Amino acid sequence: MAWRTGDHSQAAAGGLKEKVLTLDTMNPCVRKVEYAVRGPIVLRALELEQELRQGVKKPFTEVIRANIGDAQAMGQMPITFLRQVLALCVHPDLLNSPDFPDDAKRRAERILQACGGHSLGAYSISSGTQLIREDVARYIERRDGGIPADPNNIFLSTGASDAIVTLLKLLVAGEGRTRTGVLIPIPQYPLYSAALAELNAVQVDYYLDEERAWALDVAELRRALLQARDHCRPRALCIINPGNPTGQVQTRECIEAVIRFAFEEGLFLLADEVYQDNVYAEGSQFHSFKKVLTEMGPPYAARQELASFHSVSKGYMGECGFRGGYVEVVNMDAAVQQQMQKLRSVRLCPPTPGQVLLDVAVSPPAPSDPSFAQFQAERRAVLAELAAKAKLTQQVFNEAPGIRCNPVQGAMYSFPRVQLPPRAVQRAQELGLAPDMFFCLRLLEETGICVVPGSGFGQREGTYHFRMTILPPMEKLRPLLETLSQFHAKFTREYS
Amino acid sequence: MAWRTGDHSQAAAGGLKEKVLTLDTMNPCVRKVEYAVRGPIVLRALELEQELRQGVKKPFTEVIRANIGDAQAMGQMPITFLRQVLALCVHPDLLNSPDFPDDAKRRAERILQACGGHSLGAYSISSGTQLIREDVARYIERRDGGIPADPNNIFLSTGASDAIVTLLKLLVAGEGRTRTGVLIPIPQYPLYSAALAELNAVQVDYYLDEERAWALDVAELRRALLQARDHCRPRALCIINPGNPTGQVQTRECIEAVIRFAFEEGLFLLADEVYQDNVYAEGSQFHSFKKVLTEMGPPYAARQELASFHSVSKGYMGECGFRGGYVEVVNMDAAVQQQMQKLRSVRLCPPTPGQVLLDVAVSPPAPSDPSFAQFQAERRAVLAELAAKAKLTQQVFNEAPGIRCNPVQGAMYSFPRVQLPPRAVQRAQELGLAPDMFFCLRLLEETGICVVPGSGFGQREGTYHFRMTILPPMEKLRPLLETLSQFHAKFTREYS
Repeated sequence: MAWRTGDHSQAAAGGLKEKVLTLDTMNPCVRKVEYAVRGPIVLRALELEQELRQGVKKPFTEVIRANIGDAQAMGQMPITFLRQVLALCVHPDLLNSPDFPDDAKRRAERILQACGGHSLGAYSISSGTQLIREDVARYIERRDGGIPADPNNIFLSTGASDAIVTLLKLLVAGEGRTRTGVLIPIPQYPLYSAALAELNAVQVDYYLDEERAWALDVAELRRALLQARDHCRPRALCIINPGNPTGQVQTRECIEAVIRFAFEEGLFLLADEVYQDNVYAEGSQFHSFKKVLTEMGPPYAARQELASFHSVSKGYMGECGFRGGYVEVVNMDAAVQQQMQKLRSVRLCPPTPGQVLLDVAVSPPAPSDPSFAQFQAERRAVLAELAAKAKLTQQVFNEAPGIRCNPVQGAMYSFPRVQLPPRAVQRAQELGLAPDMFFCLRLLEETGICVVPGSGFGQREGTYHFRMTILPPMEKLRPLLETLSQFHAKFTREYS
Repeated sequence: MAWRTGDHSQAAAGGLKEKVLTLDTMNPCVRKVEYAVRGPIVLRALELEQELRQGVKKPFTEVIRANIGDAQAMGQMPITFLRQVLALCVHPDLLNSPDFPDDAKRRAERILQACGGHSLGAYSISSGTQLIREDVARYIERRDGGIPADPNNIFLSTGASDAIVTLLKLLVAGEGRTRTGVLIPIPQYPLYSAALAELNAVQVDYYLDEERAWALDVAELRRALLQARDHCRPRALCIINPGNPTGQVQTRECIEAVIRFAFEEGLFLLADEVYQDNVYAEGSQFHSFKKVLTEMGPPYAARQELASFHSVSKGYMGECGFRGGYVEVVNMDAAVQQQMQKLRSVRLCPPTPGQVLLDVAVSPPAPSDPSFAQFQAERRAVLAELAAKAKLTQQVFNEAPGIRCNPVQGAMYSFPRVQLPPRAVQRAQELGLAPDMFFCLRLLEETGICVVPGSGFGQREGTYHFRMTILPPMEKLRPLLETLSQFHAKFTREYS
């Protein structure tokens, strides 16, 4: 019997061989990956739910999963029309059912005609069903005041995350000091840091300004870029607008400044715009990067490289589980775009149900359609409730001493800053925990409320935050926010 | 205005800057990726379809997409029960409809109870809904004669491809001569070569034996391994059984020999078993790697590391577009398994509709259920038709001089060897084409039949093949096979 050569220690005669795949032999980049949104605190939340089910007595009767932007998990209803069209596509026998409105049936027939074998069971084209990409293009044109969108520049994807990772993959090159660097906002949605770790690219942090409602300052971009050029080749700049976890909606002036900066410094812009339908605050407005770019005219309009991402997981749809999304690429080099198409083809296609939901979301019922009234009412209700929750969250947290919550202008989260007493910080360090992780774990154990510590998203040194979704049911939200505030007060007293 | 420093040539004053992302600056690993199943020949097929739609006169009236294993695109019907359950899950109002059988309704209710917010719109646990993983575990136990399966060792995925790539990612480590090598069969399904190229891992080819119906010979595995150890660190061995493109179903003895070899040589086994329901030939039988491994007893049963992949895209289901699948890991190091769970969490979860279809496929109606008879009839019909097509394909091709087709024992493809005259080989080389690509392109232009050249899958030097699916509608299949054979004869005469 030949033993393995190489990096495994030779097993003693009669002893067990080491496994082939161990922490030591596995991909070191994967070991560096972290994803706090489903990280250690959520694992503890799962254990607590299990204990509750087994009848273990706790200071709470349920675990509140305020860690993840999953609206329907927290009781938000799906939009009826979207599910009707999808059900018709899944089971076309229903086209004969009197229980479905005609407009839903026409939509389903139109989509099925565009599918191989007229079935959702066929693979679509790898960039997504042509018809659906055309509908997405029209959505973008309507959204952007008529600026043309080409379906060939649109790639449907398995959620936005999938497309973001594809773009990052394309961008990563070089070695050592020429290794690709990617500027990401701090705080960020940790898909970015995870993907960069896995790809062994260089994460270049730029700090959003907490004192100015998480505004993006080009001077800070420049600071980060110039420092980064010492040790890597910065090639891309990510911006999340509306922001996650921070909830700010950037002004048009800010977006123009970012575009100018990216152009001057040779950076590919990655605009994560999945919350474009989630804008709540008076005076805030979503400005699409593509629209602003185009309206800035030359040299930006025809030269600045941009990828814009959208998803069916957020907005008024909340269809996270279906994994639907797209990226629109703007001013991408044609040969690179072919490479992207090739790369996407290896995974065949994005899931067809997600494509269907995206199609309906981007081409909602028109005023003359039978389903228009109900669709509008449901959509309005969802967005109004989200806006109310955003406002309530901000208000209740700002009433608590030691908690300061920037305006939740958009998206689905609050990211309050919490004061933690020095003795608590010290205790955390003794336990080998980030101080806000220590706080959040204690919060979870004592109240059942699961939020994600700011350290999972990034924050300025010496500051502590947590990200809480605004999604719990309205009737529970105020009590939860107050419970959390009271816990913070108690925690502060305990460690004073 | 600060110009980019570094690897871009400075644009002349007044000239255009280069783009940030070009062929030269992009990820060089992605440039090396190829995926023939949706590669150049398919792009040409798309153009021809476009021309036909525009009324251009061709020697054929339709393009036959025999390039991809997509049964429903070629007219195979979905299984009614699967679509009923999914429609009920998508639009639970249908639970009140008289048009659905009770067993489908009970299934849907059971699944929805297990979903966040009782909706498919919620993210599931990242490894897949617990209930569904439990059902998959029971399927595996029934399949393997009672050998236990643990739901915690099962990860649902976005098709099998997704899980395969995850395992490869975990395995890739080292640099230069210690870079991970992965043994793959030649001919192979080109996901493997594409993923290895992208991950910059070392592809180690082992040749299946065409003279013995594509049998796998351990001596050849050993040959490949020993040569590879010169320049890389082989850590894994992939086997596709039933085979794609080759269609062979390996014997139990072969599988035992592979397991012994992998154990002796310290290789993680990746068993792509997505065609486990597609076995047609008399005397052929699917033997699950896990079952064989377990029945071999110590030291293999508790020590040999294995990942087994399955999918809803193949079998009798053919639900490619839904992207449903799973991997079961066996004897994986516990700490590595936690890393895998962490890696999967970054992409949140596999699409819920694919999870639902998988659930129903692994727990089909029982004899006492209302839907049993129809389900069985539909399933039987699909598999019988596939078996008949496999047999016909093999038969017609073997009647053609210069075409030799090994038995299509399983899967969905034939991979016939074609003799090409030296003058044709020469002409191909002048055109910068692989000879079988040249043949396939001419076939496409003159008959509209789109198949994939063997060079896209790998083959022994100096041999030429193509992969054709067995999936075209039965009434068209014989004429297509004959047309192809006649084209080959004509091509041979032309270049003699």
